[in-house]
Amino acid sequence: MASSQKSIALVGSGNWGSAIAGHIGEKIRDLKGQYNERLLMWCKEETLDDGRKLTEVINKEHENVKYLPDKKIPENVIAEPDLIKAVKDADILVFVIPHQFVKETCEKLKDKIKKDAFALTLVKGFYVDEKTNELQLVSEIITKTLNIPCLSMMGANIANEVAEKVFCEATIGSRDDKHSETVRELIDTPVFRLRFYPDVEIIEMLGALKNVIAMLAGFSEGLEAGFNTRAAVLRLGFREMINFCRLYKKESTPDIYLESCGIADLIASSLGGRNYNGAKKKAETNKSLKDIEKEDLNGQSLQGPGTAKEAYQFLEGKKLLDQFPLFRDAHLICEDKIKPKVFLENLSKHPEFDRKQ
Amino acid sequence: MASSQKSIALVGSGNWGSAIAGHIGEKIRDLKGQYNERLLMWCKEETLDDGRKLTEVINKEHENVKYLPDKKIPENVIAEPDLIKAVKDADILVFVIPHQFVKETCEKLKDKIKKDAFALTLVKGFYVDEKTNELQLVSEIITKTLNIPCLSMMGANIANEVAEKVFCEATIGSRDDKHSETVRELIDTPVFRLRFYPDVEIIEMLGALKNVIAMLAGFSEGLEAGFNTRAAVLRLGFREMINFCRLYKKESTPDIYLESCGIADLIASSLGGRNYNGAKKKAETNKSLKDIEKEDLNGQSLQGPGTAKEAYQFLEGKKLLDQFPLFRDAHLICEDKIKPKVFLENLSKHPEFDRKQ
Repeated sequence: MASSQKSIALVGSGNWGSAIAGHIGEKIRDLKGQYNERLLMWCKEETLDDGRKLTEVINKEHENVKYLPDKKIPENVIAEPDLIKAVKDADILVFVIPHQFVKETCEKLKDKIKKDAFALTLVKGFYVDEKTNELQLVSEIITKTLNIPCLSMMGANIANEVAEKVFCEATIGSRDDKHSETVRELIDTPVFRLRFYPDVEIIEMLGALKNVIAMLAGFSEGLEAGFNTRAAVLRLGFREMINFCRLYKKESTPDIYLESCGIADLIASSLGGRNYNGAKKKAETNKSLKDIEKEDLNGQSLQGPGTAKEAYQFLEGKKLLDQFPLFRDAHLICEDKIKPKVFLENLSKHPEFDRKQ
Repeated sequence: MASSQKSIALVGSGNWGSAIAGHIGEKIRDLKGQYNERLLMWCKEETLDDGRKLTEVINKEHENVKYLPDKKIPENVIAEPDLIKAVKDADILVFVIPHQFVKETCEKLKDKIKKDAFALTLVKGFYVDEKTNELQLVSEIITKTLNIPCLSMMGANIANEVAEKVFCEATIGSRDDKHSETVRELIDTPVFRLRFYPDVEIIEMLGALKNVIAMLAGFSEGLEAGFNTRAAVLRLGFREMINFCRLYKKESTPDIYLESCGIADLIASSLGGRNYNGAKKKAETNKSLKDIEKEDLNGQSLQGPGTAKEAYQFLEGKKLLDQFPLFRDAHLICEDKIKPKVFLENLSKHPEFDRKQ
């Protein structure tokens, strides 16, 4: 292995993690030696129903039979159950774990990674500090805990479709041209096009927030509210997403919201994402989202309810819930405190309609 | 009838015309005397298959059995086969005819309407002047021919759903506060919310252009390209719509594109509008759009192919087709000059991916 070869590690191996591992794995294999072809993918060990270990199955069958079944992963992607072993030689760490595990994972990685590495987060979600009521973004937690820069990537990227190599695009948040170039080399292909903006945090936030609005699209569809209403829900929800981002940071250009990380991800997630489907089922059956997760998600979880809760907490602390009725109602529905139809009844009172141009 | 009572006439009585006539008819009835309750709706006379006249059926059964079947229209909406009789006393003329009939209809109305009337166009489409290659918008043709101001209204308003009174919203283009107030009185209700912008022309153009991109969403779905690709098509198409509008006029604020007339109408039309459905069927069956119109539309026509053609002509004249590959390909597909799948193959070469932030 040439010493100039950079190594990549994935922190996470769920549905999206396995799909992007396959994509990057193929790309670095095709780059023939520019990068270390061995892509280590940290995989929290699990014992499958048939008694086998998940990492062993991935490394033998080259398929994540649990979280991305029926899609082959190239052989140079190696599932590694030991977190530290997976990342210690990596120059680029791609984070793709459920957001609730970010803090503990980063703590474990402290002082165990290369000093000049950089990170790329694909994690959807954020924390709200209980004492200060301030948002804590995943990219910031990574940078603060590990003392490395962190880029973000979000977009209309439903994992199974990425694994099937149908055309999609994504948005990279990066303030470092060299890192941008590396990410372009690793990920940009004719079926996975990238665009770059310096708005690391806004891109990351949009990826999290859209899961909440996608749930509302699902409730709306489950209640058979029709296309006009669903379009209004998405538009008003998109407006709330933008306003929410602006509470945190001003964007470099409003164009960022029209990128794949913004409107396109919201649309794709509201056509057939996991949160949309779960919410639709809830509205149709009155089941709790927890039960729906158990029935349909094979061990994965919905990200929307957690993000709705964090957003609610943050907005409540800022006394801004009235300005964000869709985020408010999404959380209250997830908690079974109001019926899904209530949010539809509230649409006509949305503050957007009191706003001058 | 108090002399201060204003009268409203609808020029057109198709699917959308009948739905909005029903909506306005109810609203003015509920306003009890503020407006002349008799809402005249010009209806081009047709003989139905059973030998009856369409206007007679509408006025007797209070239902447009041909273009908006199974939805009742309030009794104060009167179908009038004589164009001049329908409009001569109107203070507000709502235009809702297929765009190819706008010029001839306006010519007939010349000097036959009240001098201080104003118009509101719901027409989707525009002309391109063959000699100058300049765009001619419906609002401008109305104003120029009839010498009255013209507002525009566009939004995520699939007609059948409006007739079912499910929540929707729309955007009004108006540069006159008094006219805006009148339109608000006539149309704004808890299930049909309005927002106002001065961008009469851009609102109108978005309503036309979205039909082209909705067709591409339909081709994409017909080819089973998946949600990621469909979201990318909508996003890139939306970007082209914005750039197209900007060739004509700068917007008062980029927010206009995030209104119901912009992203929401595009989404609703790409979920289940007429152009989406027709295009989907074309991609699935290889039939021509003309044949699909005949089979499925009961005498109504698709607006997308005409707008795609006008847009193509305009962009070709400006030598800008390369900057608008989706509009270009949409027209070529409609004309059966390329297969639908070609536009998907062209996605990764979209100029958006060469654009710096």
